[in-house]
Amino acid sequence: MKQLKLGLPKGSLEKATIELFEKAGWLIKPKSRNYFPEIDDPELACSICRPQEMSRYVESGMLDAGITGKDWTLENGSDAVFVSELVYSKVSRKPTRWIIAVKGDSDITCIEDLQGKKISTELVNVSKRFFAERNIDVEIEFSWGATEAKVVSGLVDAIVEVTETESTIRAHGLRIIHELMESNTQFIANKDAWDDPWKREKIKNIALMLQGSLNAERIVGLKMNVPENKLNDIMELLPSLNAPTVATLYNTDWFSVETVVATDVVRDLIPALTNGGAEGIIEYHLSKVI
Amino acid sequence: MKQLKLGLPKGSLEKATIELFEKAGWLIKPKSRNYFPEIDDPELACSICRPQEMSRYVESGMLDAGITGKDWTLENGSDAVFVSELVYSKVSRKPTRWIIAVKGDSDITCIEDLQGKKISTELVNVSKRFFAERNIDVEIEFSWGATEAKVVSGLVDAIVEVTETESTIRAHGLRIIHELMESNTQFIANKDAWDDPWKREKIKNIALMLQGSLNAERIVGLKMNVPENKLNDIMELLPSLNAPTVATLYNTDWFSVETVVATDVVRDLIPALTNGGAEGIIEYHLSKVI
Amino acid sequence: MKQLKLGLPKGSLEKATIELFEKAGWLIKPKSRNYFPEIDDPELACSICRPQEMSRYVESGMLDAGITGKDWTLENGSDAVFVSELVYSKVSRKPTRWIIAVKGDSDITCIEDLQGKKISTELVNVSKRFFAERNIDVEIEFSWGATEAKVVSGLVDAIVEVTETESTIRAHGLRIIHELMESNTQFIANKDAWDDPWKREKIKNIALMLQGSLNAERIVGLKMNVPENKLNDIMELLPSLNAPTVATLYNTDWFSVETVVATDVVRDLIPALTNGGAEGIIEYHLSKVI
Amino acid sequence: MKQLKLGLPKGSLEKATIELFEKAGWLIKPKSRNYFPEIDDPELACSICRPQEMSRYVESGMLDAGITGKDWTLENGSDAVFVSELVYSKVSRKPTRWIIAVKGDSDITCIEDLQGKKISTELVNVSKRFFAERNIDVEIEFSWGATEAKVVSGLVDAIVEVTETESTIRAHGLRIIHELMESNTQFIANKDAWDDPWKREKIKNIALMLQGSLNAERIVGLKMNVPENKLNDIMELLPSLNAPTVATLYNTDWFSVETVVATDVVRDLIPALTNGGAEGIIEYHLSKVI
Amino acid sequence: MKQLKLGLPKGSLEKATIELFEKAGWLIKPKSRNYFPEIDDPELACSICRPQEMSRYVESGMLDAGITGKDWTLENGSDAVFVSELVYSKVSRKPTRWIIAVKGDSDITCIEDLQGKKISTELVNVSKRFFAERNIDVEIEFSWGATEAKVVSGLVDAIVEVTETESTIRAHGLRIIHELMESNTQFIANKDAWDDPWKREKIKNIALMLQGSLNAERIVGLKMNVPENKLNDIMELLPSLNAPTVATLYNTDWFSVETVVATDVVRDLIPALTNGGAEGIIEYHLSKVI
Amino acid sequence: MKQLKLGLPKGSLEKATIELFEKAGWLIKPKSRNYFPEIDDPELACSICRPQEMSRYVESGMLDAGITGKDWTLENGSDAVFVSELVYSKVSRKPTRWIIAVKGDSDITCIEDLQGKKISTELVNVSKRFFAERNIDVEIEFSWGATEAKVVSGLVDAIVEVTETESTIRAHGLRIIHELMESNTQFIANKDAWDDPWKREKIKNIALMLQGSLNAERIVGLKMNVPENKLNDIMELLPSLNAPTVATLYNTDWFSVETVVATDVVRDLIPALTNGGAEGIIEYHLSKVI
Repeated sequence: MKQLKLGLPKGSLEKATIELFEKAGWLIKPKSRNYFPEIDDPELACSICRPQEMSRYVESGMLDAGITGKDWTLENGSDAVFVSELVYSKVSRKPTRWIIAVKGDSDITCIEDLQGKKISTELVNVSKRFFAERNIDVEIEFSWGATEAKVVSGLVDAIVEVTETESTIRAHGLRIIHELMESNTQFIANKDAWDDPWKREKIKNIALMLQGSLNAERIVGLKMNVPENKLNDIMELLPSLNAPTVATLYNTDWFSVETVVATDVVRDLIPALTNGGAEGIIEYHLSKVI
Repeated sequence: MKQLKLGLPKGSLEKATIELFEKAGWLIKPKSRNYFPEIDDPELACSICRPQEMSRYVESGMLDAGITGKDWTLENGSDAVFVSELVYSKVSRKPTRWIIAVKGDSDITCIEDLQGKKISTELVNVSKRFFAERNIDVEIEFSWGATEAKVVSGLVDAIVEVTETESTIRAHGLRIIHELMESNTQFIANKDAWDDPWKREKIKNIALMLQGSLNAERIVGLKMNVPENKLNDIMELLPSLNAPTVATLYNTDWFSVETVVATDVVRDLIPALTNGGAEGIIEYHLSKVI
Repeated sequence: MKQLKLGLPKGSLEKATIELFEKAGWLIKPKSRNYFPEIDDPELACSICRPQEMSRYVESGMLDAGITGKDWTLENGSDAVFVSELVYSKVSRKPTRWIIAVKGDSDITCIEDLQGKKISTELVNVSKRFFAERNIDVEIEFSWGATEAKVVSGLVDAIVEVTETESTIRAHGLRIIHELMESNTQFIANKDAWDDPWKREKIKNIALMLQGSLNAERIVGLKMNVPENKLNDIMELLPSLNAPTVATLYNTDWFSVETVVATDVVRDLIPALTNGGAEGIIEYHLSKVI
Repeated sequence: MKQLKLGLPKGSLEKATIELFEKAGWLIKPKSRNYFPEIDDPELACSICRPQEMSRYVESGMLDAGITGKDWTLENGSDAVFVSELVYSKVSRKPTRWIIAVKGDSDITCIEDLQGKKISTELVNVSKRFFAERNIDVEIEFSWGATEAKVVSGLVDAIVEVTETESTIRAHGLRIIHELMESNTQFIANKDAWDDPWKREKIKNIALMLQGSLNAERIVGLKMNVPENKLNDIMELLPSLNAPTVATLYNTDWFSVETVVATDVVRDLIPALTNGGAEGIIEYHLSKVI
Repeated sequence: MKQLKLGLPKGSLEKATIELFEKAGWLIKPKSRNYFPEIDDPELACSICRPQEMSRYVESGMLDAGITGKDWTLENGSDAVFVSELVYSKVSRKPTRWIIAVKGDSDITCIEDLQGKKISTELVNVSKRFFAERNIDVEIEFSWGATEAKVVSGLVDAIVEVTETESTIRAHGLRIIHELMESNTQFIANKDAWDDPWKREKIKNIALMLQGSLNAERIVGLKMNVPENKLNDIMELLPSLNAPTVATLYNTDWFSVETVVATDVVRDLIPALTNGGAEGIIEYHLSKVI
Repeated sequence: MKQLKLGLPKGSLEKATIELFEKAGWLIKPKSRNYFPEIDDPELACSICRPQEMSRYVESGMLDAGITGKDWTLENGSDAVFVSELVYSKVSRKPTRWIIAVKGDSDITCIEDLQGKKISTELVNVSKRFFAERNIDVEIEFSWGATEAKVVSGLVDAIVEVTETESTIRAHGLRIIHELMESNTQFIANKDAWDDPWKREKIKNIALMLQGSLNAERIVGLKMNVPENKLNDIMELLPSLNAPTVATLYNTDWFSVETVVATDVVRDLIPALTNGGAEGIIEYHLSKVI
């Protein structure tokens, strides 16, 4: 049987990824102290890998596809097919950012001031490239973690560090002087796998279902009844995310209007619809939106 | 920017209120040890207040609107606009009741027997008014709480106390001799705010979304297919909460019938619909019903 | 008022049964240290019974209906009406199985090898009948539990034991040599109750709602828009669980297609529908499917 | 190597027994879904057994010793050596009691009234013997559990049931008319094992350590300084659990007095000692008292 | 039988108080939704009261003794016997403080600046007295809680509020301009009860045991062996909390020295003792120190 | 004021280290999202560092002392003073081991078979040195983690990995062919700090208190009374961990004997002492043993 080798990220995204696959339709059962979880699809074989190493395995063909951060794919300089971006994380929906930070009371205010300075980071290659492209000569050191502490201790002059909400940065009194790059979670594929029609189809189907499940977290279904003379007005109020479904109702001059809308507009839209003459408005949760 | 000052009740209703707003479409983030939580709507500014004091701040204009108990608005004698009633609470859906209770073995059996007696309560003004209107002369004392214990200890002859399920009353062996008033949670507004068109609109929209979310807790969606010759019978079985939506089905003489019904009639309605000839019945949860 | 006496199983199924009834529309409140829980339907009186004894009480009329395992009804040889099978349990959706197991290194490989041997089981009568029908002479002993340990200790030669996932069997290094029977949870009724029209109606309605709730755990709703020229192709892709509901859309040559499908086909079906030309596909959870 | 086969009770006492052994100096590690836990003493081999069956295995020599209830040893009529009583349980320190109970409004008030009646119990043999000895003719039926419900339902006239705090009895409105027997947890041994000097020594050492750990739960150490002229008075105040240890102090006419006392007398003893002239009183926890 | 009526504080101190009594030797079992918990001493009858009301009940004789804050006794102006101070609380061991706070950017910097201003507080009488004694004319308003928010909202100019760690004060950006008083938990008694010898004895014994338990939280036992020629040096190192107990050892010229020391000096004391020639030093926990 | 800069290990040992310091007498309060926790000793300044980097900071003088694994000090080739070994960890008390493992079915059976092979590890330098010293030519690759998976996937031929209980090794079906080194937690110091008398004294005192607390986890206090004629026999039974403390008792020919013994001999020692004539034996927990 044909089988796709799929890499899942170990660490902070592991649980969220397994939950996302469950919503998408695949049940993954982690095995205690084992990096090869079971999945209820004989066409898939899963491995749990460090995000830092994922792109290398996808590039080399050890894995056909994998989920990892854009940052680590760049760090490794890996040559892989970008399939889709997956916006999910523990704390917020913002992309994570790699920033350059210095001590709060440092004289350094821009990246040019870093000339001749010492910088600590987990993202050594990307950082080196960044400064080289700008002809700023810096010494860059690999950090095993707890990187913020190093600039506080005076061990280094600046750090290149990842942050989502800036709370660790703030908790150490650091100041951000530059944003190096944004990163997000990506679904990537091996080039040969992408050229294999069966594998490409499988990868695209997985991407479709993952994306459909993620969409459903921020979109709800709305249904309402609208009299004929107000139909046009109501239709204009509805956001054009998808075209609404309009059906005539039996034995009346009313219409049933159904649509999907983003959760964050509902609180303004429903009052407008009510004012516009819609009746019997109901909102319901969705589990997938394609 | 225009902004509405909104008061949320501190204490037993605090968590339920924040959850209700989340369902309604507003995310409120409590801040540790701070009474001014964040809300994801720049048109709103929230404060957490004691329900006992809420109506005073709404009356004075410190707040434009607030959520509090009807009991405390009466206790304060505050002049505010009643916007809507919100039926939610921790334990049950019954209104809370302020009752008059005496020791289980007391000779007192009706409020007239309280003539000349001592009564302890947190609701001093309402209680005084209640007995004054009935020309019963009693001594009323403010209680900081644990009020039931006072009548057990013999410290007072009766108490005016709030209860939802009567379990604390029963646990102390007390006997209820009268119900003073029912109370419920209310959304109230300041008079000037109500006269300001922008603020009134904002208040009404919030009320609409809160109510729509509360409705959805007890109502579900039903959908079924019905052959033409049974349509009338089925329509008669459906409760008239909202008019059902009837659509003709393509290339058949069947109809699709959709409606919303109260959760507590479903277990009797579905068997009746089945017997009446409906097929393919599905039930689904709703998140708002307007 | 007429009342149906309903038995619920104590032990491993108790919590799951109460949750199933809640989904079906009946709220059951267990009372602390009491086997007669409250239920919010005056037409029902509930008792919690050991599954081992349930069928005897149903047979004798102490209960009008009850939920228990097929195995214990057979063990008791009770004469009761089979109403419906209810597939639910804690670990998996597979039926439980009563199997015959021996030590991993035993010489016994088939049931004939058990001639003259000693067997321990909780299911004494069914086991005796099984071996008698096959003319195999064995000594069968009642076990209070921890039965696997007995064959490990050498106390008996084989056991007849129930298993769902075989994990306890495996943890003791036992080998299964035969499957005696499959069992599942059943809704059974007393014969006289079944002949009483009111009681039969009530029992059937409960069975309908329980089954409708169980169905909804593995079925989702799908809705999509389909252009006229692709309607036939899309219809052929849809599984024939229930006939899809097709409605014409207002002022277009598109159709709205709604259907319910098993959760485990969704991940393959949605990509196929997308390829087939369906648009605006949404998936939503169901709470009952009749 | 010599090895003692030790049975531990499955069920409500299992966790408490493992904790008691840990205090006594043996670490028992339960294995998931396996009745043969590891123990950190190569001279011991543990099995988890149902208390109902323990005494039979001890009698037959399958186990050398075991911990079980006195009630089940009597029920089985097993011939085993009584080693020691172990007073520990989840709820209280009282012995459990097997009692005879009837409906709260029953006419039955004494055991003689049970003549000709039907009784349900898990303890069939002991109950039969009890009534036979008193020449009361009753019908006794085995119950799988939920026994209290049977007398409420009218299925039987009385039950013989075990209770520690009577709360389940009370929750069903039953009335106790007689106490059949008290039971407690016992450490019992096989007769041949007891005659083997090595095994008897091992069993006695385990019993000594278990008892020493149980003692320490209700006894604390007290130490104080006492001047010579008050020594006699203080010595008379001290309970005679163990003789106090009195040592002269260097270069003074004071004595150091140490003793162990039951926790429940400490709150009265310490004030008395203070009044009697003791100084520098300290209390400390003990982990074993032999 | 004689019985002492004892009041325990409801609210934030309730759990800590019950735990303290358990350490002291009395087991208090709260009853669900009842203010009269059980206690395992027939000479005591407990009531749970609001700390705000405790001193009034003790003064009036409704209670013989009670545990409450010094602040509320002063607020009520109650005449009661001070028995002992009990230093325990949830967060720290510091006394709580009632402070006067204003907005962070307020012009008010000292209490004199409050002349003519509005102040909100739960501690109305103490506050009024405080300002009257200093001839500062202020308007003082009762607050039901959430007091910090009032000065932030501009509703009042200052607040008199209780704080232990100042974290709520800081979270609202308030500035403390004065400390009104320190408060601590106190054990107080009714005057007549104190004059009754049996009651006074009982109260004093409870106070002794509570204090002995609290002492033990910050004191440990130390024991060591010391050669004769170093005994004097070691004795000088030991803090003079209690006189150490020195005993000669059998057949040697060493001494055994035992003492109790505060936990917070141990980390410096033990190295000093080691340097001074003490050997075999052991430290052990104490459960009471009188 | 003089201050010692102390490094604590981030990660799996972090919590255990903070708990150990609390037992030793220092309260460390981690700050949310900050690597510089508070400590209640003004002479100490703490930093949380990755164990992998600790020895470099100690060597460079950024830290005066730190707690880290011997393995990482070797990996970094850092020159630091070894102060003491600290045996504590989450799962067991065994040292962790760095082992070389291959696939279960690999042909590789000894380290010589690794000639020309590819090896993945987090401990690159130590591994390179190991193979170079043995003239075995291997390719060694840095691994970010999940190392076991790499040999399973066939990405590398062997791994050098750390293990305490071998459970992850076993869960991947790997086979250990060699042990590279044992490692344990160490307290290390900077050379200059060690030459500074104040810092050396502070470091030694901390080491003394940490070790005293760790000792107390496996040692208990025993106290007993012994008659004169049995004293010698009893003394010979006592392990010679520390010399027992023997005191004569007042007015008798008995002696009080106190000593400390390892927890794992107690279950054999107490029966022997009882047989030897000791009476009134008590065992108590210790919190420090120096």
